[in-house]
Amino acid sequence: MKPWLWDLDTTIAALHSKQISSVELIHEIVSRIDKYDSGLSSYIWVNRDNAELKGREIDEARSKDIPLPPLAGVPICVKDLFDVSGMPSTYGGLHFRNHTPEQTSTAVKRLLQAGAVILGKTNLHEYAYGTTNENPHFGSARNPWNRGKISGGSSGGTSVAITSGLAFAGVGTDTGGSVRIPAALTGHVGLKPTYGLVSKFGVFPLASSLDHVGPMGKTVRDVALLLDVMAGYDPKDEGSVRSAQSSYLPKVIPSDRPLDGIRLGVPRQFFYEKCHVNVLQVVSHALHELERAGASLVEVDVPLIQEVPQNQGIVIASEALDAHRSFIQNMALYGEDVRRRLEGGRAVTGADLVSAYRFQRHFRNALQSVFQQHVDALVTPTTPLTATDIGQFKAHIKAQEVNVRAHLTRYTNPWNLSGLPALSLPCGSAVDGLPVGLQFVGPAFSEQKLLQLAAKAESILPWTAIAPEYR
Amino acid sequence: MKPWLWDLDTTIAALHSKQISSVELIHEIVSRIDKYDSGLSSYIWVNRDNAELKGREIDEARSKDIPLPPLAGVPICVKDLFDVSGMPSTYGGLHFRNHTPEQTSTAVKRLLQAGAVILGKTNLHEYAYGTTNENPHFGSARNPWNRGKISGGSSGGTSVAITSGLAFAGVGTDTGGSVRIPAALTGHVGLKPTYGLVSKFGVFPLASSLDHVGPMGKTVRDVALLLDVMAGYDPKDEGSVRSAQSSYLPKVIPSDRPLDGIRLGVPRQFFYEKCHVNVLQVVSHALHELERAGASLVEVDVPLIQEVPQNQGIVIASEALDAHRSFIQNMALYGEDVRRRLEGGRAVTGADLVSAYRFQRHFRNALQSVFQQHVDALVTPTTPLTATDIGQFKAHIKAQEVNVRAHLTRYTNPWNLSGLPALSLPCGSAVDGLPVGLQFVGPAFSEQKLLQLAAKAESILPWTAIAPEYR
Repeated sequence: MKPWLWDLDTTIAALHSKQISSVELIHEIVSRIDKYDSGLSSYIWVNRDNAELKGREIDEARSKDIPLPPLAGVPICVKDLFDVSGMPSTYGGLHFRNHTPEQTSTAVKRLLQAGAVILGKTNLHEYAYGTTNENPHFGSARNPWNRGKISGGSSGGTSVAITSGLAFAGVGTDTGGSVRIPAALTGHVGLKPTYGLVSKFGVFPLASSLDHVGPMGKTVRDVALLLDVMAGYDPKDEGSVRSAQSSYLPKVIPSDRPLDGIRLGVPRQFFYEKCHVNVLQVVSHALHELERAGASLVEVDVPLIQEVPQNQGIVIASEALDAHRSFIQNMALYGEDVRRRLEGGRAVTGADLVSAYRFQRHFRNALQSVFQQHVDALVTPTTPLTATDIGQFKAHIKAQEVNVRAHLTRYTNPWNLSGLPALSLPCGSAVDGLPVGLQFVGPAFSEQKLLQLAAKAESILPWTAIAPEYR
Repeated sequence: MKPWLWDLDTTIAALHSKQISSVELIHEIVSRIDKYDSGLSSYIWVNRDNAELKGREIDEARSKDIPLPPLAGVPICVKDLFDVSGMPSTYGGLHFRNHTPEQTSTAVKRLLQAGAVILGKTNLHEYAYGTTNENPHFGSARNPWNRGKISGGSSGGTSVAITSGLAFAGVGTDTGGSVRIPAALTGHVGLKPTYGLVSKFGVFPLASSLDHVGPMGKTVRDVALLLDVMAGYDPKDEGSVRSAQSSYLPKVIPSDRPLDGIRLGVPRQFFYEKCHVNVLQVVSHALHELERAGASLVEVDVPLIQEVPQNQGIVIASEALDAHRSFIQNMALYGEDVRRRLEGGRAVTGADLVSAYRFQRHFRNALQSVFQQHVDALVTPTTPLTATDIGQFKAHIKAQEVNVRAHLTRYTNPWNLSGLPALSLPCGSAVDGLPVGLQFVGPAFSEQKLLQLAAKAESILPWTAIAPEYR
């Protein structure tokens, strides 16, 4: 029995049928953490005693046939950017070395109310302000497919835990791709929902108009199960939106041509440019498979896309510097890259930000036209590169040198500026043996349809989320 | 017959009954402009030929008993910040010396559709970025009560035209008090409506999140008549709000105690501080009269008020610099004070603006509590000073020196940051012989109630809007 390979439905069923007890399950995963995590650095803090205690409570309730919530006993991990009452929260930085909040973030509170058991707080890029998860204080979260490679970030610890079988699923945050980038580089599913669908209350901010909380899991359905629990209006989050949707669970109807009638927009301009050939090969093959399964591929242009990077940069630099206002007095505590980014924010004027916010509104409006052209979703590579080496700053795409850290967000960050939902699905491994992610983007609040579509795509792009060495 | 003394109802009735023709009325006012305006500088451009032409059309239609719109033949003036197709628009600056737009601003279009005749474009503080209307290019708009004094700004030209009988009413804009300050200093009624009620489309922006279009007139009912015409949703203005209200016209029921049952909030802290004794004397007497007429005066605190000036300053500096982005290449064309203000905007960082916008949201939310305390409106002086000398930079309040230009907005600009409706009503003249304004502030979209209340107050605070020399 290798429970760490199970998806959430299987896990829930096994617990429900008492094939395995919650305590056994938790114990099994904690033992794996003890065995493997020193080589992976996926956790900053492990909830050893309380996780088992919680498991025992659930087992007792189950033995008495007390009705249990949907995720009762499912061991998950939480990016260490979320406050959880009584658990240390570092946000990946030294300013909060000894910080244990009293409040619990709304997203995590909903997971706890649904019965999930938190195994621990996972590693992240310092203050979520970076894409590699090379954390100078808590170690680089290492890619289970090749421990010399980055996991991607900023929610890399969660990705590493999922893909090495050290958690069944987890939550991350995504400001420029921080859920989708590590999901793509480590080979699992990650969703950045529509802005405002999942509460950000109790999550340390990076850039509040771009920050999203997102579910991360082995499969599309796993991610949908977490979204189902986390989504919903929260008056404590200024950006939270009232949404009528009640369920995000995709129903997969087995079929030879599951994608019949689906129209996928392919924005060759920008989203297939400056992309490494290793990634393009896998993505092209995946597109071909989607077409064979009935999808129509439609070439589309994303309006205003060339102006996105600069405006996104202005917004993130200003909002991040504001969020760190009271901590930059202690500039020496930051790692070199985050310190440099924060300092760079000082060069941005208020007038620049006014202009960037105006661009953001125009971009959102302009994108409506793309989906009004009867395209169900856009499909792009999630990242232009597979996982690079830890410590690697530059990469080459054709003959052109690119900055790895910035370049990794090229295809993901437009969906933070626009707030549109975007999901990364593993679509194969490249010639370098590393996973490649395929990104699906839908109109605002189209999560149900997007997850449905992604589940159909998943059914024709077979993948195992646990890296070979950890199966 | 002195038609320039008439309020709008009287004017409309006189035109309707053919007591005077539109052409005669327009001719009369244009003759007054020829006679007086060289000493007042209220107009930048006069619509001589076309105004009479328009009057002739209206007279013809009337003679044929063709039904006419409500303001048919009423001569008004328009601040030269509004685009009107075919009329020169300088926005008070030299960059637009020879600029004649093709579009017409929505607010003015609605006035034209209602039959109003535009006499001309009125003087303003350069690009509306100042409070005195000392315009280095088009002259200082002079106060009809004393031509050595400022009119206040930035909509000073409209105020001067109204109070010297060179227009029956007019429109202005208000970003920190630019309708209310000149209304107070020259002695007429000015309303800054709730943010989003009147479209800003076609108005040269100063700071788009603070900019409001407002009606200016001799009486509360005059202002309500203009608002009735101008208010309403406009898809061309991003900030425009759909509002259900259909009429803003106050009904005045003659009564000995017209204010019975009205509760007025008096925020002594901040809004009665740093106020010149000349103003305080008149306002105190007015409050006493309001109380005698049945109003209850309730001491209230305006939450967060001490932090307003700094945050308002950050927003205006950033948004104005953004609006002038393509003109500051020609910095030498600006007058000294506006140039200095724009340059000051460069020192504001994006992070400062993020923080100021957050404050703005908090301030708006916090203000709801004030009105939930069963206060119908707040009442404050409109300005802490009566009109100062043209060229005067400093004034003394008690022993304290204040900067006139900045200090004039102290009581008005919180209602730009909050977006709440605010009206200035003349409430008497000070010992220096100059008018004093009383400001009423209501909850969002309470214009009908606010105008009703102001009309009742007006009935017990007798005033003639035309300055003595021009009656």
